[in-house]
Amino acid sequence: MESLTGRPLHPFLRRGIFFSHRDLQEILQLYESGTPFYLYTGRGPSSDALHLGHMIPFLFTQYLQEAFQVPCVIQLTDDEKFLFSKDNSKKLEDYQRLGWENAKDILAVGFDCERTFIFRDTDYIGTMYPNILKIQKAVTYNQAKAIFGFDDSDNIGKHGFPAVQAAPSFSSSFPQLFGSQTNLPCLIPCAIDQDPYFRMTRDVAPKLGYRKPALIHSKFFPALQGENTKMSASMAHTAIYVSDTAKQLKTKVNKYAFSGGGATIEEHQKHGGNCDIDVSYKYLSFFLEDDEQLERIRQEYSSGKMLTGEIKAKLIQVLQPLLERHQQRRSQVTDEMIRKVMTPRQLSF
Amino acid sequence: MESLTGRPLHPFLRRGIFFSHRDLQEILQLYESGTPFYLYTGRGPSSDALHLGHMIPFLFTQYLQEAFQVPCVIQLTDDEKFLFSKDNSKKLEDYQRLGWENAKDILAVGFDCERTFIFRDTDYIGTMYPNILKIQKAVTYNQAKAIFGFDDSDNIGKHGFPAVQAAPSFSSSFPQLFGSQTNLPCLIPCAIDQDPYFRMTRDVAPKLGYRKPALIHSKFFPALQGENTKMSASMAHTAIYVSDTAKQLKTKVNKYAFSGGGATIEEHQKHGGNCDIDVSYKYLSFFLEDDEQLERIRQEYSSGKMLTGEIKAKLIQVLQPLLERHQQRRSQVTDEMIRKVMTPRQLSF
Repeated sequence: MESLTGRPLHPFLRRGIFFSHRDLQEILQLYESGTPFYLYTGRGPSSDALHLGHMIPFLFTQYLQEAFQVPCVIQLTDDEKFLFSKDNSKKLEDYQRLGWENAKDILAVGFDCERTFIFRDTDYIGTMYPNILKIQKAVTYNQAKAIFGFDDSDNIGKHGFPAVQAAPSFSSSFPQLFGSQTNLPCLIPCAIDQDPYFRMTRDVAPKLGYRKPALIHSKFFPALQGENTKMSASMAHTAIYVSDTAKQLKTKVNKYAFSGGGATIEEHQKHGGNCDIDVSYKYLSFFLEDDEQLERIRQEYSSGKMLTGEIKAKLIQVLQPLLERHQQRRSQVTDEMIRKVMTPRQLSF
Repeated sequence: MESLTGRPLHPFLRRGIFFSHRDLQEILQLYESGTPFYLYTGRGPSSDALHLGHMIPFLFTQYLQEAFQVPCVIQLTDDEKFLFSKDNSKKLEDYQRLGWENAKDILAVGFDCERTFIFRDTDYIGTMYPNILKIQKAVTYNQAKAIFGFDDSDNIGKHGFPAVQAAPSFSSSFPQLFGSQTNLPCLIPCAIDQDPYFRMTRDVAPKLGYRKPALIHSKFFPALQGENTKMSASMAHTAIYVSDTAKQLKTKVNKYAFSGGGATIEEHQKHGGNCDIDVSYKYLSFFLEDDEQLERIRQEYSSGKMLTGEIKAKLIQVLQPLLERHQQRRSQVTDEMIRKVMTPRQLSF
């Protein structure tokens, strides 16, 4: 990738945060020989703002778009969130609104408007429908149950949904964007938990006469409470949101970020901190770009020289300008810009 | 209905061919007090031409439209036929084409273009999608299994489909047609085998804050081979198609129409024919408009005075001008007319 793009590798690649792939080499070889690809990623709009974990695939996809100068499609699965949500106080229209709001955070990441199409499923389903039907016809409920763990008390919309997430993997789902290029290669950067959707998609692709999409997967981004806990949109203290103020950020890190340090200063200085479980260190490994500085922190914290308070202060120092810059960019994203980026139109290559 | 419309009842009503309903009285009372309704019927496009059985709901719906001067929406479920077909040689595009061709036969029945919207699901799904999702969320797979007999080896598109057939029962699925009238009453004329879809729809309606659609059901139209056989698009001799020539019609009736007559002329004259199982008599009871003449035929055939050859000749004599007129009308339906009637637009009331 360095030699193809003339750019240094993204820290997410250098550090193995994007750690696994399917057919990435084929995409790069095709690119080298003059066949471009398009990027596809997405989000289920379940909260007003994105948290840091949501940002990982978008940050990386934006980097790939800039490095390879390729088009990108971003799916907002408002239909999925409605069908799968147990919160019956939320209406479909609420998820549509969240999709619209989330598009602002996504655009603020720095996507190139001339090369990017963001769409909510409830707006765009019609154009993808022929591909959705073809995918649905190629997957039995038995297969879907085995992959997604559906059960018979599920509502009847859930069972067909995987085809809606699969469809954007095929360029023929975007006639206005790609015109006659109905079999353009597709690269999907996503979190590892989305892989089942795309294993299904790759199984189906040859039956439909389409290329299998290539994938590159990111590791799970831990909740503030540590590796085996989950970030939850309904519990704001489990995650740092891109909308958090400097004060909220500081409080959350100091109060909730799970520490791998010793129980007392003495113990910490004696045995050192454990970077494998320390959330502040984990977050730094995602967001501190300087490799040498990160390595120094690792050594000092592991040896006990750096204290928990200090590594937390360092994390706050790294994240604060990042959030501030994001919030500043987001404030410049207008509804008019969203309308434009959500309009199906020819994308430049 | 006679007093409301100032028209004689349709023979299908007089003879109990439309024999059952749900909430029809409510629709008529609303109509009387000034609230109009809209008609909804449909077809799964599985063959190039419609057969006589397919025509029943359309003939009756057209009569209702003319009598009540109300709008009508007609769904062509090309998606359903693709998902449910076991014939893998047929592509989605084939069903889309059949839908287009069938629309010509439907329009030839005499629907009022200013009051009629015909749509293929693959063209129109996007606009109905919010209602489809809301219906899907309100029905579990357990319920759908009990109603439609789905099983786990079905493809994942089938399970969600009932919501696609349900959605047109709600006027909010047609914003371009009905504008702000989002809760217009709906009357669905259909064959009795479609009732399960609309029982489900009626169960769901109150959960969504919508009116339950009213229904009026027609009896099963028998195949040429008799009451307990099925018409099949892949076996042309089981049905009379509206595209059949005079010669095909004659051959089919004479050769295949199941006879309730005696085994020999002598036996027939002695015991008479059985109108309860005689297909020619059944078809006459659908298509011979003159009540007195039909009753005379019934008496003469039952008594043995009229022979099987004669009742068949009578049927041919009734159907031939009917087919001829249909074919003549259909030949005048242009692609341009179909394009127009398939365009979502304000319908006149």
